[in-house]
Amino acid sequence: MILEVADIRIHPGRQAEFDQAILRGLEQIISKVPGLISWKVNKGIESTNRYLLMIEWETLEHHTVNFRQSPAFQEWRAIVGPFFAEPPVVEHFQGLG
Amino acid sequence: MILEVADIRIHPGRQAEFDQAILRGLEQIISKVPGLISWKVNKGIESTNRYLLMIEWETLEHHTVNFRQSPAFQEWRAIVGPFFAEPPVVEHFQGLG
Repeated sequence: MILEVADIRIHPGRQAEFDQAILRGLEQIISKVPGLISWKVNKGIESTNRYLLMIEWETLEHHTVNFRQSPAFQEWRAIVGPFFAEPPVVEHFQGLG
Repeated sequence: MILEVADIRIHPGRQAEFDQAILRGLEQIISKVPGLISWKVNKGIESTNRYLLMIEWETLEHHTVNFRQSPAFQEWRAIVGPFFAEPPVVEHFQGLG
């Protein structure tokens, strides 16, 4: 299992709309992607236009190949992309301990 | 409940030592701090000297006041601080959905 962390900055003042959009995208699209284990959205307290989206995948390739190269990725980005103030910083992690 | 995320960059080549140190610090110190709910260490796959430490606290103040102003914080930093290549970026988050 690997953890994807997407560090997202949205346009200020659009938090309420984005909250709805990202949950819709996660429920309608991400939740149905093969290899998806779980997801969690975290909203910034100090940086109120920052979100950390954390997604657990069975393998790195389930995210980087199977999902990223599928039509579902385009559908997902169509929902959340318009809110992004800059390209999200996305990296992957393995649990320790 | 709030989530603390500490984005840590360590000196390259010291991952094995840091893995042991951070787990020791978490088990010996952080786990005993009042208001601590859970912790997880994530090691970077693309950025191999990057770690995301995620700690759940009952309230923001349990971290920022009670822990940060306690002797336990100094003990914790004495264990993990020598590995840091730069000051960690620490922010707090609330879950959405």
